[in-house]
Amino acid sequence: MGNSEGTKNKALTAKVVLVNSFDELEKKKDSLKGMIVFYNYKFNPTFISTFQSYGDAVSYRGGGASRAAKYGAVAVIVRSMTHSTDNNPHTGALRYDTTLAKIPALAVGLKDADWLSDQIQNNKIISLTIKTNAHFLPDTIGHNVIGELTGSEFPDEIITIGGHLDSWDPAEGAHDDGAGVVHTIEILRAFKALGYKPKRTIRFVLFANEENGLRGGNKYAQEAKTKNEKHIFALESDAGGFTPRSISFGGTPEQLKKLQSWIPLLYPYGVYEITNGGGGADIGPLNRTFKTPVAEFGPDSQRYFDYHHARNDVFENVNRRELELGAVNMAALIYLIDKYGF
Amino acid sequence: MGNSEGTKNKALTAKVVLVNSFDELEKKKDSLKGMIVFYNYKFNPTFISTFQSYGDAVSYRGGGASRAAKYGAVAVIVRSMTHSTDNNPHTGALRYDTTLAKIPALAVGLKDADWLSDQIQNNKIISLTIKTNAHFLPDTIGHNVIGELTGSEFPDEIITIGGHLDSWDPAEGAHDDGAGVVHTIEILRAFKALGYKPKRTIRFVLFANEENGLRGGNKYAQEAKTKNEKHIFALESDAGGFTPRSISFGGTPEQLKKLQSWIPLLYPYGVYEITNGGGGADIGPLNRTFKTPVAEFGPDSQRYFDYHHARNDVFENVNRRELELGAVNMAALIYLIDKYGF
Repeated sequence: MGNSEGTKNKALTAKVVLVNSFDELEKKKDSLKGMIVFYNYKFNPTFISTFQSYGDAVSYRGGGASRAAKYGAVAVIVRSMTHSTDNNPHTGALRYDTTLAKIPALAVGLKDADWLSDQIQNNKIISLTIKTNAHFLPDTIGHNVIGELTGSEFPDEIITIGGHLDSWDPAEGAHDDGAGVVHTIEILRAFKALGYKPKRTIRFVLFANEENGLRGGNKYAQEAKTKNEKHIFALESDAGGFTPRSISFGGTPEQLKKLQSWIPLLYPYGVYEITNGGGGADIGPLNRTFKTPVAEFGPDSQRYFDYHHARNDVFENVNRRELELGAVNMAALIYLIDKYGF
Repeated sequence: MGNSEGTKNKALTAKVVLVNSFDELEKKKDSLKGMIVFYNYKFNPTFISTFQSYGDAVSYRGGGASRAAKYGAVAVIVRSMTHSTDNNPHTGALRYDTTLAKIPALAVGLKDADWLSDQIQNNKIISLTIKTNAHFLPDTIGHNVIGELTGSEFPDEIITIGGHLDSWDPAEGAHDDGAGVVHTIEILRAFKALGYKPKRTIRFVLFANEENGLRGGNKYAQEAKTKNEKHIFALESDAGGFTPRSISFGGTPEQLKKLQSWIPLLYPYGVYEITNGGGGADIGPLNRTFKTPVAEFGPDSQRYFDYHHARNDVFENVNRRELELGAVNMAALIYLIDKYGF
């Protein structure tokens, strides 16, 4: 979440207003001056993919502060984007409209959100005092970590596979994106253990700074452009270390058809569908720079937002078998693309 | 696991022999007299379905004691059937050959099994002292708990859905089979909440005593026979409260085809395959008595044997969303069978 430097560690007391949606915000816009806005928009349980619920709700965290600041609000509190049964707050990116006041923004867990909503509705809570020590540290140097198996036949055709090294503050980011990092390393390990000599060059990339600016992904594509590299495919794992289900793909319909023809080979290991959708954040710049076809591994999504950007996104909450099976399916796909080209 | 009444709470000290498979047992058969046999057969990680690994390994627990007793062994220790990363022992059914000595049998967790195997191989452990207080209590009365929505058009056509109430001793049995019990109750709750009036009679059955003799399932089929009931379909949930993937079916090829024609309706909610395989234990007697077609809900299997018959099969290890989605898919199937008959 965000905070203007000016309010760091200072307590702020103001009246609070409950807002269940942006529609409600607009209706109340004339009464928000000097208020704390509490966005209590619910993570929609009727979407089966939790990523759909996230897409539906995330604008409250991403843009809610500035939308409230526009009407004179002095802070926002946001209901966490999760189906979890615990009370952990879930943090994440927030974009300030720089033409408006950068007001503090905080996330609360679901139990606190339900309680606060009840208290406000029953006039038991009128005002709140909030205090946050959120702040930006100065930039520092980060690195993409890259391993490479150079192709034996077509070394100039590059296949990228990767996840990102950074995580949000509350925890180590075991699912987001430790799982993607381990998937990437495990595929390299497996190929080496098998003595596999790829025809094409396979790059194993642990990206720096996905969460806060995508600088690793941008830099990787920039370098590729500078060196005039030929990137034929990129695969990302940034949806957690859960049991495999699908792969989403961003490329031409013909390429999608080719990938889908391989489903029977992946099916016994868990991936039963390859959908039209697109790759992950870190390989987006490759796609935008070169029209490189991109894909993202799609594990089961049900538990992802139980942990996403929260203090329980820790090693202990990753299941070894589920993590391993992700690497198995991704390795198979990379093998097929190396073997048959793309 | 099992224990003859005679050894209850008495310490037993004997030399131990490491046996990695039944083949190895046969090779060592002349040297087992008076020994403790340690079966260290591994849960096979190369099977993608963990139920396949279980089917492959379970005979060491189920029949290993009598196979060792046949050659004069005085006790067995069995490596637990699990991929877990913890050290919990996993218990379960054991069948004594009543013509042989009923020797004590114990399960150990994977860390203990690996350690013990190393110690024995390096001659650091020669003999073991074991003590168990396992024993049978006298039989008592248990009950199947049955709810019914009576059919409005074909009340004599009965559809059964169920799970079992009992569990193994180490824990409450939240996945095995609390999940099946909650699925069953949740489907009834949902139908009632929707005001759904089924055409056919739907029975919601919480079976007694699945784990130790299948007496609830047997009794249910017996009563059905006595009353000359017409059972057109039965669905069981006894594979845990995990994210939905499949349904296994036991019936005719034509019936299987009919079920499979409904996959597109279940697909968006998680079930993408209906396989030829058979239903669960508790509805087996219905199938054997009436040739009733039977099915079992097939959630993702990766975590099931992390908890199966172990002390960590507790409420906290069931994910609410995954559990709910199981009920959603099962409810849809029951609805379709009620609507179109079978």
